[in-house]
Amino acid sequence: MNSIELQQNWEDDGLHEECGVFGMYDLDGNDVASSIYYGLFALQHRGQESCGISVSDTFGPRKVDLLKGMGLVNEVFNSENLSKLHGNIGVGHVRYSTAGESIPSNAQPLVINYVKGTLMLAHNGNLINANELRDELAYTGAIFQTTIDSEVIAYLVARERINAKTAQEAVTNAMKKLKGAYALVISSPRKLIGARDPFGFKPLCIGKRDNAYILASETCALDTIGAEFVRDVLPGEVVTIDKDGIKSDTSMCLPKAKEARCVFEYIYFARPDSNFDGVSVYHSRIMAGRFLAMDSPVEADVVVGVPESGNAAAMGYAMESGIPYGTAFVKNSYVGRTFIKPQQKSRESSVRIKLNVLKEAVCGKRVIMIDDSIVRGTTSDRIVQMLKDAGATEVHVRISSPPFLYECYFGTDIPSRDQLIAHNRTIEEINEIIGADSLGYLRVERLKEIAGGLGICTGCFDEKYPMEPPKEDIRGEYIK
Amino acid sequence: MNSIELQQNWEDDGLHEECGVFGMYDLDGNDVASSIYYGLFALQHRGQESCGISVSDTFGPRKVDLLKGMGLVNEVFNSENLSKLHGNIGVGHVRYSTAGESIPSNAQPLVINYVKGTLMLAHNGNLINANELRDELAYTGAIFQTTIDSEVIAYLVARERINAKTAQEAVTNAMKKLKGAYALVISSPRKLIGARDPFGFKPLCIGKRDNAYILASETCALDTIGAEFVRDVLPGEVVTIDKDGIKSDTSMCLPKAKEARCVFEYIYFARPDSNFDGVSVYHSRIMAGRFLAMDSPVEADVVVGVPESGNAAAMGYAMESGIPYGTAFVKNSYVGRTFIKPQQKSRESSVRIKLNVLKEAVCGKRVIMIDDSIVRGTTSDRIVQMLKDAGATEVHVRISSPPFLYECYFGTDIPSRDQLIAHNRTIEEINEIIGADSLGYLRVERLKEIAGGLGICTGCFDEKYPMEPPKEDIRGEYIK
Amino acid sequence: MNSIELQQNWEDDGLHEECGVFGMYDLDGNDVASSIYYGLFALQHRGQESCGISVSDTFGPRKVDLLKGMGLVNEVFNSENLSKLHGNIGVGHVRYSTAGESIPSNAQPLVINYVKGTLMLAHNGNLINANELRDELAYTGAIFQTTIDSEVIAYLVARERINAKTAQEAVTNAMKKLKGAYALVISSPRKLIGARDPFGFKPLCIGKRDNAYILASETCALDTIGAEFVRDVLPGEVVTIDKDGIKSDTSMCLPKAKEARCVFEYIYFARPDSNFDGVSVYHSRIMAGRFLAMDSPVEADVVVGVPESGNAAAMGYAMESGIPYGTAFVKNSYVGRTFIKPQQKSRESSVRIKLNVLKEAVCGKRVIMIDDSIVRGTTSDRIVQMLKDAGATEVHVRISSPPFLYECYFGTDIPSRDQLIAHNRTIEEINEIIGADSLGYLRVERLKEIAGGLGICTGCFDEKYPMEPPKEDIRGEYIK
Amino acid sequence: MNSIELQQNWEDDGLHEECGVFGMYDLDGNDVASSIYYGLFALQHRGQESCGISVSDTFGPRKVDLLKGMGLVNEVFNSENLSKLHGNIGVGHVRYSTAGESIPSNAQPLVINYVKGTLMLAHNGNLINANELRDELAYTGAIFQTTIDSEVIAYLVARERINAKTAQEAVTNAMKKLKGAYALVISSPRKLIGARDPFGFKPLCIGKRDNAYILASETCALDTIGAEFVRDVLPGEVVTIDKDGIKSDTSMCLPKAKEARCVFEYIYFARPDSNFDGVSVYHSRIMAGRFLAMDSPVEADVVVGVPESGNAAAMGYAMESGIPYGTAFVKNSYVGRTFIKPQQKSRESSVRIKLNVLKEAVCGKRVIMIDDSIVRGTTSDRIVQMLKDAGATEVHVRISSPPFLYECYFGTDIPSRDQLIAHNRTIEEINEIIGADSLGYLRVERLKEIAGGLGICTGCFDEKYPMEPPKEDIRGEYIK
Repeated sequence: MNSIELQQNWEDDGLHEECGVFGMYDLDGNDVASSIYYGLFALQHRGQESCGISVSDTFGPRKVDLLKGMGLVNEVFNSENLSKLHGNIGVGHVRYSTAGESIPSNAQPLVINYVKGTLMLAHNGNLINANELRDELAYTGAIFQTTIDSEVIAYLVARERINAKTAQEAVTNAMKKLKGAYALVISSPRKLIGARDPFGFKPLCIGKRDNAYILASETCALDTIGAEFVRDVLPGEVVTIDKDGIKSDTSMCLPKAKEARCVFEYIYFARPDSNFDGVSVYHSRIMAGRFLAMDSPVEADVVVGVPESGNAAAMGYAMESGIPYGTAFVKNSYVGRTFIKPQQKSRESSVRIKLNVLKEAVCGKRVIMIDDSIVRGTTSDRIVQMLKDAGATEVHVRISSPPFLYECYFGTDIPSRDQLIAHNRTIEEINEIIGADSLGYLRVERLKEIAGGLGICTGCFDEKYPMEPPKEDIRGEYIK
Repeated sequence: MNSIELQQNWEDDGLHEECGVFGMYDLDGNDVASSIYYGLFALQHRGQESCGISVSDTFGPRKVDLLKGMGLVNEVFNSENLSKLHGNIGVGHVRYSTAGESIPSNAQPLVINYVKGTLMLAHNGNLINANELRDELAYTGAIFQTTIDSEVIAYLVARERINAKTAQEAVTNAMKKLKGAYALVISSPRKLIGARDPFGFKPLCIGKRDNAYILASETCALDTIGAEFVRDVLPGEVVTIDKDGIKSDTSMCLPKAKEARCVFEYIYFARPDSNFDGVSVYHSRIMAGRFLAMDSPVEADVVVGVPESGNAAAMGYAMESGIPYGTAFVKNSYVGRTFIKPQQKSRESSVRIKLNVLKEAVCGKRVIMIDDSIVRGTTSDRIVQMLKDAGATEVHVRISSPPFLYECYFGTDIPSRDQLIAHNRTIEEINEIIGADSLGYLRVERLKEIAGGLGICTGCFDEKYPMEPPKEDIRGEYIK
Repeated sequence: MNSIELQQNWEDDGLHEECGVFGMYDLDGNDVASSIYYGLFALQHRGQESCGISVSDTFGPRKVDLLKGMGLVNEVFNSENLSKLHGNIGVGHVRYSTAGESIPSNAQPLVINYVKGTLMLAHNGNLINANELRDELAYTGAIFQTTIDSEVIAYLVARERINAKTAQEAVTNAMKKLKGAYALVISSPRKLIGARDPFGFKPLCIGKRDNAYILASETCALDTIGAEFVRDVLPGEVVTIDKDGIKSDTSMCLPKAKEARCVFEYIYFARPDSNFDGVSVYHSRIMAGRFLAMDSPVEADVVVGVPESGNAAAMGYAMESGIPYGTAFVKNSYVGRTFIKPQQKSRESSVRIKLNVLKEAVCGKRVIMIDDSIVRGTTSDRIVQMLKDAGATEVHVRISSPPFLYECYFGTDIPSRDQLIAHNRTIEEINEIIGADSLGYLRVERLKEIAGGLGICTGCFDEKYPMEPPKEDIRGEYIK
Repeated sequence: MNSIELQQNWEDDGLHEECGVFGMYDLDGNDVASSIYYGLFALQHRGQESCGISVSDTFGPRKVDLLKGMGLVNEVFNSENLSKLHGNIGVGHVRYSTAGESIPSNAQPLVINYVKGTLMLAHNGNLINANELRDELAYTGAIFQTTIDSEVIAYLVARERINAKTAQEAVTNAMKKLKGAYALVISSPRKLIGARDPFGFKPLCIGKRDNAYILASETCALDTIGAEFVRDVLPGEVVTIDKDGIKSDTSMCLPKAKEARCVFEYIYFARPDSNFDGVSVYHSRIMAGRFLAMDSPVEADVVVGVPESGNAAAMGYAMESGIPYGTAFVKNSYVGRTFIKPQQKSRESSVRIKLNVLKEAVCGKRVIMIDDSIVRGTTSDRIVQMLKDAGATEVHVRISSPPFLYECYFGTDIPSRDQLIAHNRTIEEINEIIGADSLGYLRVERLKEIAGGLGICTGCFDEKYPMEPPKEDIRGEYIK
């Protein structure tokens, strides 16, 4: 009955986030809220903490309807409240925050009134100069009501808009001040604008259904609503969609060689049925598995994946090695956000509640187990043990990414170095911890190949960031 | 489980609001959230739509805990969430919005981060130049996320703070730009600031309990938490409370003759156990009844009040006239915000569900019925009829305020003129509509007397506003 | 989203309850759920813990729609769920449980399927032989799913119905086994039945609106829905309403001299605008005040009531004594079930949060304060002190009922003797505890007079119960 | 805040249900509620509508704590309410109702007070003589408050208990009157009892962890809580667990040849990591796929399963045929109970929102698609079309069960014949409807083989029911 908000001020909150964005403009004037809902539904894996939809009617008065809240899209939205969101242009967002406060006021989209009217804004990514920008803005009188980077971006656009001829120009000018990773969907009363940072960290694509245009983080959202894929927004590009179609501003684009996509979109974040910049996520995972088979071969009876994201790489490993693919795990699909974690002293364990082993599939066999990554290493040892308990005679672990060694400043939530199992450890030492018979990682050199030769960021593996990371002392304050 | 927010942009929303504010600073460092809760509880009659509490610890790091939501204070707050609000300085707010959208993002207090840190702000009143100020601010890059005047005030304070020496100076400088009615409670990390507009439209008082200071809309909130009344904040005064006690800035104060309190605080809004600027609300209602008896006498057997606000005036009428006071109505105290209104065709009526007549008290008697006001006149005829149905031989209606004829621009929600029953009608014509045997209103001349001789605003009765009201064309846009 | 039920078995639960019942049968076939809702709304003061409505269509198939839940009627019911309850015959209930478990499965009405179809049953009262009846039933194979007496009554009716010619006969035969206080509203698929225990402890009246009949605990519920009062159900009478009108079975009625109404319906429980067995509740309270003035006179300047139930008696005292009636207290009408009680060590007190004194009304005056009862005496001393703090020079307390000395076995929740302030204390000793200048109680002899000469139960004042109370050892087990 | 219950009487409700049961008795006295919670979590796939847990302390007073509600186990239970359920013996239940009313009062376990104390009862299955039993019971005075068979069983046990020496004997005697499918978990204050109908329609197994015994519908629940599998309860067996261990009563067991397990437990209902009566569910699905490859071979490039239940059979088909196994579909794992279904006219479709095709995996390929069953056939055509849209050159559908032709009376919710796609149609006609290039079903003869040679029920495929089904006219009334 009541909407309750527990909020703390932004000085205590420097969240690294992974999000999904969606925008839609139906030139024929049909309501878009319901399609945005289904689009967010397809992007739910990108953020389960909060979500929101804002819409406006390009043929009507310049008003915006906004509905956002904490929870999954099917928890926040229902037939009744969705039916109250009228308009043929709109923006949607799903958000995930990995640490600290998760508060309603930080939900997106952000809807603001500014000098030229109203803006809706949804943002995926992480700015590395957000604090500097906040300080600069504050010294000219800005006030901040949230802790999200989107508010900083909104301010910059609003200030640039005072002198810019068009909203697109204001966005481009604002982008000149932004450092970091971002995919943006912005709606002014009569235009839908999409923008991607020059390095292309975060994905954004364009779709079309009848006379409606769509912007979305992933192509799977286009499939879900029955739209056709048009093209990806280029790294650094600003696209503007209005009644005259798509306009492009590529003035901020960098040479292709400098592009630096987050490779984890391919390895882990994205849905396998999505394509980014021409490369199929599913295919890139199959390739990762093939490379593992080439680079870390081992004799075995069956290749299995840790569900869900390990399955495609396992299939690739099986194809390349000729060892049969199998299913070793049953995942309890009801484990969700509100699941009660067992207490330390309890006989139940979180891993066993989520996963169970199919004994028939592994008993008496030498098993190659493929997982997408090892971060802290806290569950890998238990999964290996479960396979052995079920009768596997050998367990060989293969990881479809290189070892994590360094921080990410561009939107992926990676713990600090000392919590990373691979930090200051050899592969043999890691293998000893997880108790496998052998352990192999994907080689960093293979990453560009699985991404179809596109420019990628490998900072978390080799500390080669595409732009200067924030200084140590700043980062200390920045990561709360 | 989910906090859901349905929001529309401010251009569609020009709410006239009545609110209650409360601030507290415990110099000894004790938590204040629980006392703010009880204070808001005592002020609940001033706003039932939303409420909020924000607190900070003057001895700790500069962080703010904020909890706000839609609903009554005992719906939004519970032992669990209240216990998480730690801090010895804080601000609370209850809000009522009379028309259009009532949305979570408009709930107060507003907590902002600005150039000098963090501000919490709670506001009661209505600015008449809010739109102009928004436009001015927008042209220098401000963005607005709510439709409330408090956001405008926060911006002004934030901008003045850049050059001001103290927060108090910034508040005073911001006040120079504000036109309209306001009582403000603002907390900076180490100071509690109270301010009242120069005309004194809205009340604000200072209390003390042990080593803690309180600012509150009404003195009844002081009684409830066991605090002593110190004094009223003067119209135009800015008071600053810090570890050195109370400081006062009276530079914005006007000559007493120009003060223009809203007389409806005495007649209707406030709790009868409150005192404003030295005048007891209960006493002023008794006086209104006495004046009615003097100016509109009639022979009768019993004087009754329409509960609750008519009772004190009825007692005053009884005292002055010598006619016995009686109780004629039983009110169903469970009728609340979520009550299902009967449909037009239903045999039940809203009035009868809320009120029932005590037949024994009125049967066979000539009744004088005192009510505080008639706005649209839609229920008065039914109540008169209920008395007659119960056997009253005559029903004489006396109203403890003058007829409403004009708009209020200063925070009282009065419908437009054509919806006011008194507009373009004589008292005889009104009486015919409500079906009483006679009708009398309080004379405008009596208002100053019931307010103890203090300066009051009588604009809604005689169109004599203390400051130029917004121009007709502006108002057309301003009242949505 | 979820309906959650926390239930314990009945052996741990011996609740003394006060409830309200309502039944309606519209012979023309109109839906009755909405009128039952408004009727329960008028009876809400009789029970705030849970409520329910069940309806059936006498012209349709023999199915019942039931909606019940924990909370107030406007919390459990809303336009949407109410609109799904279709039928022209139905039963409603509001329930209050004073101790121990309050659980959803104990909410009423009870809807059962039995040998002759379906019964809906709502019950107000308390059986003193419920445990014996449960045991008897269990020994012939009954199973119990709730802890309420209504389930026992339903069983008895169901078993009698096997051999009885009519439902009315089954009810009458079941009543022969029931000992204690009860007002029953039962609906079979085609009949509405009302019954009152032979002593008439609990009230029940008959109303009519157009071609619809109503049974209700209090006449105020008839007023609320615009129905006319027809007559009271007699103590011991069973009335059956069907398409042929009202039939009466008075075979269980006792001589008038044996009737034993609960006098607390007049003093405290009922709404003042109700009438029971021909006596106005308001009038009986006025009379209680008059008798207090006669029997316990004292010189004073003003007579005030403790709201709400003390007000009528205060007015009676004022009339009789000639001392002016005044208002001394302002009650916070937002204090409800979910109010957070202040902690012991807190500076706030529950009494001061609920009540505040109007200083103007009592300062410098000798005050007579009328309250309806003193049970444990834990708040009286605080209220007296508040009056003195506000400047009252003397405070004389008068109580409009005699001192509580004994248990009630018939549905009124009275603590055990050792918790009653009057137990083993003289009036002087009590007065010393509450700190008043004098104290007076209504004399037991006056009770019959204030109840218009009707037969009443005075067991809690003089231990003269109308029937043998449960034996000591049984009561020990029975009161959990 | 409120527990709301919308209930209709049982005459309108003849639900076929599939449920999961769980019981636990810790002889050492440790609380079992948390383990029951995790056990229900593992059984969640057997019922998502409502759930409940009841517990009692065998060392303490004979009281029962019960918590049940509508929703998933992680919606109904949370750390707070779970921590209030104290006791070392208890029963849990998850429930699924496939049609009509789903109401809180029908949630299980049922907790009753009867002649010998308290019983908790959880039941999976469907009685075919429930209506007759209800009528018989009603004629001797029983009343029914729910529409579930469990209430009938509870009555029978309660009545038999009057003359029986032990609870086990009462259960055995009650079973003599039950016709149909049931797995029962019953807890008396000091004993945990499990029972399975003589045909063994529904599974039930025994587990042990330290000094605690478990009864569960599936072995996966044992794995989840870290318990060891002891053995299955035999068809017709009653087991009693108390401080002396497990006692068995096999007096109701039938010859093995008459056993009639529901084969759909193997094909569809159960989790693949469970074993029933010695046969692995996963293995039986692999076998179904192998048999399909033998009996309905076809040339193709890839074999894919419709997730989740088609995957194992697809793997079996791939093994047998030598055609590679692949993954063709991505399932949106966030589609849950509260998902908003697209409207008919909407461009979105439910199937596309739930499933998306991996184009890379099927484009240009001849695809064999394995599904577990076709009931109404409303989604199969869309999935086939999705594969073709993604570029599959041929789509051959293979179903790992025979065609559904007849009703099930024993707990599986199958629509009436005229809604079954296979009713009155040849396989060619069905294939035409779903638009595949070929269609093959599992042969009925293969069913016994995939169930490891155990006795199974094949009634829904060949109308050979293990016991006389209810007569036509009775069924008409019985299925509402």
